[in-house]
Amino acid sequence: MADTSWVKSAKSLKGVVLDMCGVLYDSGEDGGVPIPGSVEAVKQLKASDLKLRFCTNETQATREKFVAKLQRMGFDISVSEVFSPAPAAVAILKERGLRPHLLVYDGVVPEFDSVNKADPNCVVIGDAAENFSYQNLNDAFRVLIGLEKPVLFSLGKGRYYKETDGLKLDVGVFMKALEYACDTEAEVIGKPSCVFFQSVLNDMGIQPHEALMIGDDLVSDVGGAQQCGMKGVQVRTGKYRSASDERHPTVTADGTVDDLAHAVEMILNERGH
Amino acid sequence: MADTSWVKSAKSLKGVVLDMCGVLYDSGEDGGVPIPGSVEAVKQLKASDLKLRFCTNETQATREKFVAKLQRMGFDISVSEVFSPAPAAVAILKERGLRPHLLVYDGVVPEFDSVNKADPNCVVIGDAAENFSYQNLNDAFRVLIGLEKPVLFSLGKGRYYKETDGLKLDVGVFMKALEYACDTEAEVIGKPSCVFFQSVLNDMGIQPHEALMIGDDLVSDVGGAQQCGMKGVQVRTGKYRSASDERHPTVTADGTVDDLAHAVEMILNERGH
Repeated sequence: MADTSWVKSAKSLKGVVLDMCGVLYDSGEDGGVPIPGSVEAVKQLKASDLKLRFCTNETQATREKFVAKLQRMGFDISVSEVFSPAPAAVAILKERGLRPHLLVYDGVVPEFDSVNKADPNCVVIGDAAENFSYQNLNDAFRVLIGLEKPVLFSLGKGRYYKETDGLKLDVGVFMKALEYACDTEAEVIGKPSCVFFQSVLNDMGIQPHEALMIGDDLVSDVGGAQQCGMKGVQVRTGKYRSASDERHPTVTADGTVDDLAHAVEMILNERGH
Repeated sequence: MADTSWVKSAKSLKGVVLDMCGVLYDSGEDGGVPIPGSVEAVKQLKASDLKLRFCTNETQATREKFVAKLQRMGFDISVSEVFSPAPAAVAILKERGLRPHLLVYDGVVPEFDSVNKADPNCVVIGDAAENFSYQNLNDAFRVLIGLEKPVLFSLGKGRYYKETDGLKLDVGVFMKALEYACDTEAEVIGKPSCVFFQSVLNDMGIQPHEALMIGDDLVSDVGGAQQCGMKGVQVRTGKYRSASDERHPTVTADGTVDDLAHAVEMILNERGH
Protein backbone atom coordinates (compact mmCIF):
# COMPACT_ATOMS: atom_id res chain seq x y z
CA MET A 1 0.00 0.00 0.00
CA ALA A 2 1.31 3.43 -0.95
CA ASP A 3 1.76 5.92 1.87
CA THR A 4 -0.71 8.74 1.20
CA SER A 5 -0.39 10.55 4.54
CA TRP A 6 1.25 13.54 2.81
CA VAL A 7 -2.09 14.47 1.25
CA LYS A 8 -3.53 15.32 4.68
CA SER A 9 -1.42 18.51 4.56
CA ALA A 10 -3.07 19.53 1.28
CA LYS A 11 -5.74 21.54 3.17
CA SER A 12 -3.16 23.96 4.58
CA LEU A 13 -1.35 24.48 1.26
CA LYS A 14 -1.28 27.88 -0.38
CA GLY A 15 0.90 27.07 -3.35
CA VAL A 16 2.31 24.31 -5.54
CA VAL A 17 5.65 24.35 -7.36
CA LEU A 18 6.06 22.01 -10.30
CA ASP A 19 9.22 20.68 -11.84
CA MET A 20 8.80 20.54 -15.61
CA CYS A 21 10.83 17.91 -17.48
CA GLY A 22 9.73 14.44 -16.32
CA VAL A 23 6.63 15.84 -14.63
CA LEU A 24 4.88 17.80 -17.39
CA TYR A 25 6.61 16.18 -20.35
CA ASP A 26 9.34 13.79 -21.46
CA SER A 27 11.99 15.57 -23.48
CA GLY A 28 13.51 14.20 -26.67
CA GLU A 29 14.98 14.94 -30.07
CA ASP A 30 11.60 16.11 -31.36
CA GLY A 31 11.11 18.55 -28.46
CA GLY A 32 9.32 16.06 -26.29
CA VAL A 33 5.84 14.79 -25.55
CA PRO A 34 3.40 15.64 -22.72
CA ILE A 35 3.04 13.04 -19.98
CA PRO A 36 -0.56 11.77 -20.14
CA GLY A 37 -2.93 13.81 -17.94
CA SER A 38 -0.44 16.57 -17.15
CA VAL A 39 -1.90 19.25 -19.47
CA GLU A 40 -5.27 18.78 -17.78
CA ALA A 41 -3.68 18.66 -14.29
CA VAL A 42 -2.05 22.08 -14.81
CA LYS A 43 -5.41 23.41 -15.97
CA GLN A 44 -7.09 22.10 -12.81
CA LEU A 45 -4.44 23.63 -10.52
CA LYS A 46 -4.85 26.99 -12.27
CA ALA A 47 -8.63 26.81 -11.80
CA SER A 48 -8.14 26.14 -8.07
CA ASP A 49 -7.35 28.61 -5.28
CA LEU A 50 -3.73 27.40 -5.10
CA LYS A 51 -0.88 29.52 -6.39
CA LEU A 52 1.22 27.82 -9.04
CA ARG A 53 4.79 28.27 -10.22
CA PHE A 54 7.16 26.21 -12.36
CA CYS A 55 10.73 25.60 -11.31
CA THR A 56 13.15 23.99 -13.76
CA ASN A 57 16.86 23.41 -14.15
CA GLU A 58 16.24 23.39 -17.91
CA THR A 59 19.06 25.28 -19.60
CA GLN A 60 18.87 24.05 -23.18
CA ALA A 61 16.98 27.11 -24.44
CA THR A 62 16.09 30.64 -23.39
CA ARG A 63 13.14 30.78 -21.03
CA GLU A 64 11.03 32.35 -23.81
CA LYS A 65 11.66 29.54 -26.30
CA PHE A 66 11.27 26.90 -23.63
CA VAL A 67 7.89 28.23 -22.52
CA ALA A 68 6.74 28.55 -26.16
CA LYS A 69 7.53 24.83 -26.60
CA LEU A 70 5.42 23.93 -23.57
CA GLN A 71 2.58 26.11 -24.86
CA ARG A 72 2.68 24.25 -28.18
CA MET A 73 2.28 21.01 -26.23
CA GLY A 74 -0.93 22.47 -24.83
CA PHE A 75 0.24 23.70 -21.41
CA ASP A 76 -1.26 26.93 -20.01
CA ILE A 77 2.06 28.48 -18.87
CA SER A 78 3.54 31.99 -19.14
CA VAL A 79 7.19 33.09 -18.94
CA SER A 80 6.70 35.00 -15.68
CA GLU A 81 5.57 31.80 -13.91
CA VAL A 82 8.77 29.91 -14.81
CA PHE A 83 11.98 30.02 -12.73
CA SER A 84 15.16 28.76 -14.40
CA PRO A 85 18.88 29.02 -13.57
CA ALA A 86 20.21 31.11 -16.48
CA PRO A 87 18.47 34.39 -15.56
CA ALA A 88 19.53 33.80 -11.92
CA ALA A 89 23.13 33.29 -13.07
CA VAL A 90 23.12 36.50 -15.11
CA ALA A 91 22.03 38.44 -12.01
CA ILE A 92 24.86 36.91 -9.92
CA LEU A 93 27.53 37.54 -12.59
CA LYS A 94 26.54 41.20 -12.90
CA GLU A 95 26.35 41.68 -9.14
CA ARG A 96 29.90 40.32 -8.69
CA GLY A 97 31.40 41.84 -11.85
CA LEU A 98 32.34 38.41 -13.24
CA ARG A 99 33.02 37.68 -16.92
CA PRO A 100 32.03 34.09 -17.78
CA HIS A 101 33.47 31.51 -20.12
CA LEU A 102 30.27 29.63 -21.07
CA LEU A 103 29.97 25.87 -21.55
CA VAL A 104 26.24 25.58 -22.17
CA TYR A 105 23.72 24.46 -24.75
CA ASP A 106 23.77 26.73 -27.83
CA GLY A 107 20.10 27.62 -27.35
CA VAL A 108 20.65 29.23 -23.93
CA VAL A 109 23.54 31.49 -24.97
CA PRO A 110 21.23 34.46 -25.79
CA GLU A 111 20.25 34.63 -22.08
CA PHE A 112 23.83 35.84 -21.50
CA ASP A 113 23.79 38.49 -24.27
CA SER A 114 23.96 41.34 -21.75
CA VAL A 115 27.01 39.93 -19.91
CA ASN A 116 30.62 40.88 -20.74
CA LYS A 117 32.44 37.68 -21.72
CA ALA A 118 35.85 39.11 -22.72
CA ASP A 119 38.94 37.90 -20.79
CA PRO A 120 36.92 35.46 -18.64
CA ASN A 121 37.49 35.19 -14.89
CA CYS A 122 34.99 32.40 -14.19
CA VAL A 123 33.29 29.45 -15.91
CA VAL A 124 29.54 28.81 -16.13
CA ILE A 125 28.39 25.33 -17.12
CA GLY A 126 24.83 24.22 -17.86
CA ASP A 127 23.39 21.06 -19.31
CA ALA A 128 25.38 21.32 -22.54
CA ALA A 129 24.58 17.78 -23.81
CA GLU A 130 26.63 17.14 -27.00
CA ASN A 131 28.55 20.38 -26.33
CA PHE A 132 30.25 18.51 -23.47
CA SER A 133 32.94 17.38 -25.89
CA TYR A 134 36.46 16.64 -24.66
CA GLN A 135 37.69 19.77 -26.43
CA ASN A 136 35.06 22.03 -24.81
CA LEU A 137 35.63 20.55 -21.35
CA ASN A 138 39.36 21.01 -21.79
CA ASP A 139 38.87 24.65 -22.84
CA ALA A 140 36.78 25.33 -19.72
CA PHE A 141 39.39 23.54 -17.59
CA ARG A 142 42.20 25.67 -18.99
CA VAL A 143 40.31 28.87 -18.14
CA LEU A 144 39.77 27.65 -14.57
CA ILE A 145 43.31 26.36 -13.96
CA GLY A 146 44.69 29.66 -15.28
CA LEU A 147 42.88 31.66 -12.57
CA GLU A 148 44.48 32.32 -9.22
CA LYS A 149 41.39 30.81 -7.61
CA PRO A 150 39.07 28.86 -9.95
CA VAL A 151 35.45 30.14 -9.91
CA LEU A 152 32.97 27.63 -11.31
CA PHE A 153 29.19 28.04 -11.48
CA SER A 154 26.96 25.07 -12.31
CA LEU A 155 23.38 25.57 -13.47
CA GLY A 156 21.96 22.73 -11.41
CA LYS A 157 23.79 19.58 -10.34
CA GLY A 158 21.58 16.77 -11.66
CA ARG A 159 23.09 13.35 -12.36
CA TYR A 160 20.98 12.42 -15.37
CA TYR A 161 17.63 13.01 -16.98
CA LYS A 162 15.37 11.00 -19.22
CA GLU A 163 14.78 11.72 -22.87
CA THR A 164 12.49 9.74 -25.13
CA ASP A 165 15.49 7.63 -26.25
CA GLY A 166 16.83 6.93 -22.76
CA LEU A 167 18.77 8.36 -19.82
CA LYS A 168 21.22 11.20 -20.51
CA LEU A 169 24.04 12.59 -18.37
CA ASP A 170 23.18 15.94 -16.78
CA VAL A 171 25.31 18.95 -15.83
CA GLY A 172 26.19 17.71 -12.32
CA VAL A 173 28.36 14.98 -13.79
CA PHE A 174 30.52 17.54 -15.62
CA MET A 175 30.51 19.83 -12.59
CA LYS A 176 32.10 16.96 -10.60
CA ALA A 177 34.58 16.41 -13.43
CA LEU A 178 35.78 20.03 -13.42
CA GLU A 179 35.72 20.21 -9.61
CA TYR A 180 38.12 17.27 -9.48
CA ALA A 181 40.30 18.59 -12.31
CA CYS A 182 40.80 21.95 -10.56
CA ASP A 183 40.49 20.81 -6.93
CA THR A 184 37.70 23.31 -6.35
CA GLU A 185 34.01 23.38 -5.43
CA ALA A 186 31.36 24.74 -7.78
CA GLU A 187 28.61 27.14 -6.76
CA VAL A 188 25.28 25.64 -7.82
CA ILE A 189 22.66 27.97 -9.30
CA GLY A 190 19.19 26.39 -9.58
CA LYS A 191 17.70 23.41 -7.79
CA PRO A 192 18.53 22.11 -5.17
CA SER A 193 19.93 25.46 -3.99
CA CYS A 194 17.71 26.91 -1.25
CA VAL A 195 18.33 30.44 -2.57
CA PHE A 196 16.64 29.36 -5.79
CA PHE A 197 13.57 27.81 -4.12
CA GLN A 198 13.25 30.82 -1.84
CA SER A 199 13.09 33.18 -4.84
CA VAL A 200 10.07 31.18 -6.09
CA LEU A 201 8.36 31.36 -2.69
CA ASN A 202 9.03 35.10 -2.48
CA ASP A 203 7.36 35.56 -5.85
CA MET A 204 4.30 33.63 -4.61
CA GLY A 205 4.30 35.56 -1.32
CA ILE A 206 3.99 32.41 0.79
CA GLN A 207 6.00 30.61 3.46
CA PRO A 208 7.92 27.34 2.83
CA HIS A 209 5.55 25.24 4.97
CA GLU A 210 2.63 26.45 2.85
CA ALA A 211 4.19 25.11 -0.36
CA LEU A 212 4.47 21.70 -2.00
CA MET A 213 7.08 20.78 -4.63
CA ILE A 214 6.28 18.02 -7.11
CA GLY A 215 9.20 16.62 -9.08
CA ASP A 216 10.73 13.49 -10.59
CA ASP A 217 14.23 14.10 -9.19
CA LEU A 218 14.44 12.84 -5.62
CA VAL A 219 17.55 14.77 -4.64
CA SER A 220 17.22 17.97 -6.65
CA ASP A 221 13.45 18.52 -6.49
CA VAL A 222 12.22 16.71 -3.39
CA GLY A 223 15.33 16.92 -1.21
CA GLY A 224 16.04 20.51 -2.23
CA ALA A 225 12.49 21.63 -1.44
CA GLN A 226 12.54 19.81 1.91
CA GLN A 227 15.87 21.46 2.84
CA CYS A 228 14.12 24.75 2.22
CA GLY A 229 11.17 23.86 4.52
CA MET A 230 8.70 22.83 1.82
CA LYS A 231 7.03 19.46 1.37
CA GLY A 232 8.28 17.36 -1.52
CA VAL A 233 6.42 14.69 -3.46
CA GLN A 234 7.98 12.52 -6.15
CA VAL A 235 6.22 11.30 -9.28
CA ARG A 236 6.91 7.90 -10.83
CA THR A 237 7.49 9.46 -14.26
CA GLY A 238 10.59 10.96 -15.89
CA LYS A 239 13.82 9.86 -14.29
CA TYR A 240 12.14 8.11 -11.31
CA ARG A 241 13.76 4.75 -10.55
CA SER A 242 12.08 2.55 -7.94
CA ALA A 243 15.19 0.66 -6.79
CA SER A 244 17.33 3.66 -5.87
CA ASP A 245 14.71 6.33 -5.11
CA GLU A 246 12.47 4.49 -2.65
CA ARG A 247 15.36 3.50 -0.41
CA HIS A 248 17.66 6.49 -0.85
CA PRO A 249 20.22 6.90 1.98
CA THR A 250 19.57 10.62 2.64
CA VAL A 251 16.29 11.75 1.03
CA THR A 252 12.80 10.42 1.77
CA ALA A 253 9.94 11.95 -0.19
CA ASP A 254 6.86 13.06 1.74
CA GLY A 255 4.97 10.99 -0.78
CA THR A 256 5.33 9.14 -4.06
CA VAL A 257 2.57 9.16 -6.68
CA ASP A 258 2.16 7.63 -10.12
CA ASP A 259 2.14 10.92 -12.01
CA LEU A 260 1.17 14.58 -11.83
CA ALA A 261 -2.48 13.91 -12.73
CA HIS A 262 -2.74 11.54 -9.78
CA ALA A 263 -1.07 14.01 -7.38
CA VAL A 264 -3.34 16.86 -8.42
CA GLU A 265 -6.44 14.69 -8.14
CA MET A 266 -5.47 13.71 -4.57
CA ILE A 267 -4.69 17.30 -3.57
CA LEU A 268 -7.87 18.78 -4.99
CA ASN A 269 -10.03 15.96 -3.58
CA GLU A 270 -8.57 16.55 -0.11
CA ARG A 271 -9.31 20.27 -0.43
CA GLY A 272 -12.93 19.42 -1.36
CA HIS A 273 -12.89 20.59 -4.95
CA MET B 1 67.74 26.95 -1.11
CA ALA B 2 66.25 23.68 -2.32
CA ASP B 3 66.01 20.86 0.21
CA THR B 4 68.41 18.15 -0.96
CA SER B 5 68.33 15.97 2.15
CA TRP B 6 66.54 13.19 0.21
CA VAL B 7 69.74 12.47 -1.69
CA LYS B 8 71.43 11.23 1.50
CA SER B 9 69.31 8.07 1.17
CA ALA B 10 70.71 7.44 -2.32
CA LYS B 11 73.49 5.25 -0.90
CA SER B 12 71.03 2.67 0.41
CA LEU B 13 68.96 2.52 -2.77
CA LYS B 14 68.73 -0.66 -4.78
CA GLY B 15 66.34 0.48 -7.48
CA VAL B 16 64.78 3.45 -9.21
CA VAL B 17 61.31 3.62 -10.76
CA LEU B 18 60.69 6.29 -13.38
CA ASP B 19 57.42 7.79 -14.49
CA MET B 20 57.55 8.34 -18.24
CA CYS B 21 55.38 11.17 -19.65
CA GLY B 22 56.57 14.47 -18.18
CA VAL B 23 59.81 12.89 -16.90
CA LEU B 24 61.32 11.27 -20.00
CA TYR B 25 59.38 13.23 -22.62
CA ASP B 26 56.59 15.73 -23.20
CA SER B 27 53.76 14.18 -25.22
CA GLY B 28 52.01 15.91 -28.08
CA GLU B 29 50.30 15.55 -31.45
CA ASP B 30 53.56 14.56 -33.12
CA GLY B 31 54.24 11.80 -30.58
CA GLY B 32 56.21 14.03 -28.26
CA VAL B 33 59.76 15.21 -27.65
CA PRO B 34 62.39 14.04 -25.14
CA ILE B 35 62.98 16.32 -22.16
CA PRO B 36 66.58 17.61 -22.46
CA GLY B 37 69.07 15.34 -20.68
CA SER B 38 66.65 12.49 -20.03
CA VAL B 39 67.91 10.11 -22.75
CA GLU B 40 71.42 10.40 -21.28
CA ALA B 41 70.09 10.11 -17.70
CA VAL B 42 68.40 6.76 -18.47
CA LYS B 43 71.67 5.57 -20.04
CA GLN B 44 73.58 6.53 -16.88
CA LEU B 45 71.13 4.72 -14.60
CA LYS B 46 71.38 1.59 -16.75
CA ALA B 47 75.18 1.75 -16.53
CA SER B 48 74.99 1.99 -12.72
CA ASP B 49 74.41 -0.81 -10.20
CA LEU B 50 70.81 0.35 -9.60
CA LYS B 51 67.86 -1.64 -10.89
CA LEU B 52 65.58 0.35 -13.17
CA ARG B 53 61.90 0.04 -14.11
CA PHE B 54 59.42 2.33 -15.81
CA CYS B 55 55.93 2.82 -14.42
CA THR B 56 53.33 4.69 -16.47
CA ASN B 57 49.60 5.30 -16.50
CA GLU B 58 49.91 5.77 -20.25
CA THR B 59 46.95 4.09 -21.91
CA GLN B 60 46.86 5.69 -25.36
CA ALA B 61 48.66 2.82 -27.09
CA THR B 62 49.61 -0.80 -26.52
CA ARG B 63 52.75 -1.21 -24.44
CA GLU B 64 54.60 -2.43 -27.54
CA LYS B 65 53.79 0.63 -29.64
CA PHE B 66 54.41 2.95 -26.71
CA VAL B 67 57.86 1.51 -26.04
CA ALA B 68 58.71 1.63 -29.76
CA LYS B 69 57.92 5.36 -29.70
CA LEU B 70 60.26 5.92 -26.78
CA GLN B 71 62.97 3.90 -28.53
CA ARG B 72 62.63 6.13 -31.60
CA MET B 73 63.20 9.13 -29.32
CA GLY B 74 66.50 7.53 -28.36
CA PHE B 75 65.61 5.90 -25.02
CA ASP B 76 67.19 2.56 -24.13
CA ILE B 77 63.97 0.87 -22.93
CA SER B 78 62.44 -2.57 -23.48
CA VAL B 79 58.81 -3.72 -23.11
CA SER B 80 59.55 -5.99 -20.14
CA GLU B 81 60.82 -3.01 -18.11
CA VAL B 82 57.58 -1.04 -18.54
CA PHE B 83 54.55 -1.41 -16.24
CA SER B 84 51.26 0.03 -17.50
CA PRO B 85 47.59 -0.34 -16.40
CA ALA B 86 46.03 -2.10 -19.42
CA PRO B 87 47.84 -5.45 -19.01
CA ALA B 88 47.07 -5.27 -15.26
CA ALA B 89 43.39 -4.66 -16.05
CA VAL B 90 43.24 -7.62 -18.43
CA ALA B 91 44.56 -9.87 -15.66
CA ILE B 92 41.91 -8.62 -13.19
CA LEU B 93 39.04 -8.96 -15.70
CA LYS B 94 39.98 -12.56 -16.49
CA GLU B 95 40.47 -13.44 -12.85
CA ARG B 96 36.98 -12.17 -11.96
CA GLY B 97 35.21 -13.32 -15.13
CA LEU B 98 34.18 -9.77 -16.07
CA ARG B 99 33.22 -8.62 -19.57
CA PRO B 100 34.15 -4.97 -20.07
CA HIS B 101 32.55 -2.14 -22.00
CA LEU B 102 35.66 -0.16 -22.99
CA LEU B 103 35.94 3.63 -23.06
CA VAL B 104 39.61 4.02 -23.93
CA TYR B 105 41.91 5.44 -26.56
CA ASP B 106 41.61 3.53 -29.86
CA GLY B 107 45.29 2.61 -29.76
CA VAL B 108 45.01 0.62 -26.53
CA VAL B 109 42.03 -1.51 -27.60
CA PRO B 110 44.28 -4.36 -28.93
CA GLU B 111 45.55 -4.93 -25.34
CA PHE B 112 42.02 -6.23 -24.62
CA ASP B 113 41.83 -8.55 -27.67
CA SER B 114 41.85 -11.66 -25.50
CA VAL B 115 38.96 -10.50 -23.28
CA ASN B 116 35.30 -11.37 -23.92
CA LYS B 117 33.43 -8.07 -24.38
CA ALA B 118 29.94 -9.40 -25.26
CA ASP B 119 27.02 -8.43 -22.98
CA PRO B 120 29.22 -6.25 -20.73
CA ASN B 121 28.93 -6.41 -16.92
CA CYS B 122 31.48 -3.71 -16.11
CA VAL B 123 33.05 -0.57 -17.61
CA VAL B 124 36.77 0.10 -18.05
CA ILE B 125 37.87 3.68 -18.74
CA GLY B 126 41.35 4.88 -19.62
CA ASP B 127 42.68 8.20 -20.80
CA ALA B 128 40.45 8.30 -23.89
CA ALA B 129 41.15 11.96 -24.80
CA GLU B 130 38.87 12.93 -27.73
CA ASN B 131 37.00 9.64 -27.28
CA PHE B 132 35.55 11.17 -24.10
CA SER B 133 32.67 12.55 -26.16
CA TYR B 134 29.28 13.13 -24.58
CA GLN B 135 27.90 10.21 -26.58
CA ASN B 136 30.62 7.80 -25.45
CA LEU B 137 30.35 8.87 -21.81
CA ASN B 138 26.58 8.45 -22.01
CA ASP B 139 26.98 4.96 -23.50
CA ALA B 140 29.30 3.95 -20.64
CA PHE B 141 26.87 5.46 -18.14
CA ARG B 142 23.95 3.48 -19.56
CA VAL B 143 25.90 0.22 -19.21
CA LEU B 144 26.72 1.04 -15.57
CA ILE B 145 23.25 2.23 -14.55
CA GLY B 146 21.74 -0.88 -16.14
CA LEU B 147 23.74 -3.18 -13.83
CA GLU B 148 22.41 -4.20 -10.44
CA LYS B 149 25.64 -2.88 -8.92
CA PRO B 150 27.76 -0.68 -11.21
CA VAL B 151 31.36 -1.94 -11.58
CA LEU B 152 33.74 0.72 -12.88
CA PHE B 153 37.50 0.34 -13.40
CA SER B 154 39.66 3.40 -14.06
CA LEU B 155 43.15 3.04 -15.55
CA GLY B 156 44.73 5.65 -13.30
CA LYS B 157 43.01 8.64 -11.72
CA GLY B 158 45.12 11.60 -12.88
CA ARG B 159 43.55 15.07 -13.08
CA TYR B 160 45.45 16.33 -16.10
CA TYR B 161 48.69 15.94 -18.03
CA LYS B 162 50.75 18.21 -20.20
CA GLU B 163 51.06 17.92 -23.95
CA THR B 164 53.18 20.15 -26.13
CA ASP B 165 50.11 22.36 -26.77
CA GLY B 166 49.06 22.66 -23.12
CA LEU B 167 47.33 20.88 -20.22
CA LYS B 168 44.82 18.14 -21.03
CA LEU B 169 42.17 16.49 -18.86
CA ASP B 170 43.12 12.99 -17.73
CA VAL B 171 41.06 9.90 -16.97
CA GLY B 172 40.45 10.72 -13.28
CA VAL B 173 38.19 13.57 -14.26
CA PHE B 174 35.89 11.24 -16.19
CA MET B 175 36.12 8.62 -13.45
CA LYS B 176 34.70 11.22 -11.03
CA ALA B 177 32.00 12.10 -13.57
CA LEU B 178 30.81 8.48 -13.89
CA GLU B 179 31.17 7.88 -10.14
CA TYR B 180 28.79 10.78 -9.48
CA ALA B 181 26.39 9.77 -12.26
CA CYS B 182 26.01 6.25 -10.88
CA ASP B 183 26.62 6.97 -7.18
CA THR B 184 29.44 4.44 -7.11
CA GLU B 185 33.19 4.28 -6.50
CA ALA B 186 35.63 3.20 -9.17
CA GLU B 187 38.44 0.71 -8.65
CA VAL B 188 41.68 2.33 -9.80
CA ILE B 189 44.17 0.19 -11.75
CA GLY B 190 47.59 1.82 -12.12
CA LYS B 191 49.26 4.58 -10.13
CA PRO B 192 48.64 5.56 -7.32
CA SER B 193 47.33 2.10 -6.42
CA CYS B 194 49.73 0.34 -4.06
CA VAL B 195 48.99 -3.01 -5.73
CA PHE B 196 50.44 -1.57 -8.92
CA PHE B 197 53.64 -0.22 -7.33
CA GLN B 198 54.09 -3.47 -5.44
CA SER B 199 54.01 -5.46 -8.70
CA VAL B 200 56.94 -3.33 -9.95
CA LEU B 201 58.90 -3.89 -6.73
CA ASN B 202 58.24 -7.63 -6.91
CA ASP B 203 59.64 -7.69 -10.43
CA MET B 204 62.79 -5.90 -9.21
CA GLY B 205 63.03 -8.20 -6.19
CA ILE B 206 63.53 -5.33 -3.73
CA GLN B 207 61.75 -3.84 -0.73
CA PRO B 208 59.82 -0.53 -0.85
CA HIS B 209 62.36 1.32 1.34
CA GLU B 210 65.09 0.35 -1.13
CA ALA B 211 63.30 2.06 -4.03
CA LEU B 212 62.91 5.64 -5.24
CA MET B 213 60.11 6.83 -7.53
CA ILE B 214 60.73 9.88 -9.73
CA GLY B 215 57.67 11.50 -11.30
CA ASP B 216 56.04 14.77 -12.32
CA ASP B 217 52.65 14.00 -10.73
CA LEU B 218 52.74 14.82 -7.03
CA VAL B 219 49.69 12.78 -6.03
CA SER B 220 49.84 9.84 -8.41
CA ASP B 221 53.62 9.28 -8.63
CA VAL B 222 55.10 10.73 -5.45
CA GLY B 223 52.15 10.27 -3.06
CA GLY B 224 51.36 6.82 -4.45
CA ALA B 225 54.95 5.63 -4.06
CA GLN B 226 55.17 7.04 -0.53
CA GLN B 227 51.91 5.28 0.46
CA CYS B 228 53.60 2.09 -0.66
CA GLY B 229 56.70 2.74 1.49
CA MET B 230 58.99 4.07 -1.25
CA LYS B 231 60.64 7.46 -1.43
CA GLY B 232 59.16 9.89 -3.96
CA VAL B 233 60.91 12.76 -5.73
CA GLN B 234 59.13 15.23 -8.03
CA VAL B 235 60.65 16.81 -11.12
CA ARG B 236 59.85 20.36 -12.20
CA THR B 237 59.01 19.19 -15.74
CA GLY B 238 55.78 17.89 -17.28
CA LYS B 239 52.67 18.81 -15.32
CA TYR B 240 54.60 20.18 -12.32
CA ARG B 241 53.06 23.44 -11.05
CA SER B 242 54.95 25.32 -8.33
CA ALA B 243 51.96 27.07 -6.75
CA SER B 244 49.88 23.97 -6.02
CA ASP B 245 52.54 21.25 -5.78
CA GLU B 246 54.99 22.81 -3.29
CA ARG B 247 52.27 23.51 -0.71
CA HIS B 248 49.94 20.58 -1.33
CA PRO B 249 47.58 19.82 1.62
CA THR B 250 48.28 16.07 1.81
CA VAL B 251 51.41 15.14 -0.17
CA THR B 252 54.97 16.39 0.43
CA ALA B 253 57.65 15.10 -1.90
CA ASP B 254 60.87 13.78 -0.35
CA GLY B 255 62.57 16.15 -2.74
CA THR B 256 61.97 18.36 -5.76
CA VAL B 257 64.50 18.65 -8.57
CA ASP B 258 64.64 20.56 -11.84
CA ASP B 259 64.52 17.50 -14.08
CA LEU B 260 65.47 13.84 -14.41
CA ALA B 261 69.04 14.63 -15.50
CA HIS B 262 69.54 16.65 -12.32
CA ALA B 263 68.04 13.93 -10.11
CA VAL B 264 70.22 11.21 -11.64
CA GLU B 265 73.34 13.35 -11.35
CA MET B 266 72.66 13.91 -7.63
CA ILE B 267 71.95 10.22 -6.99
CA LEU B 268 75.01 8.93 -8.83
CA ASN B 269 77.30 11.58 -7.26
CA GLU B 270 76.08 10.57 -3.80
CA ARG B 271 76.79 6.93 -4.60
CA GLY B 272 80.31 7.90 -5.69
CA HIS B 273 80.00 7.15 -9.40
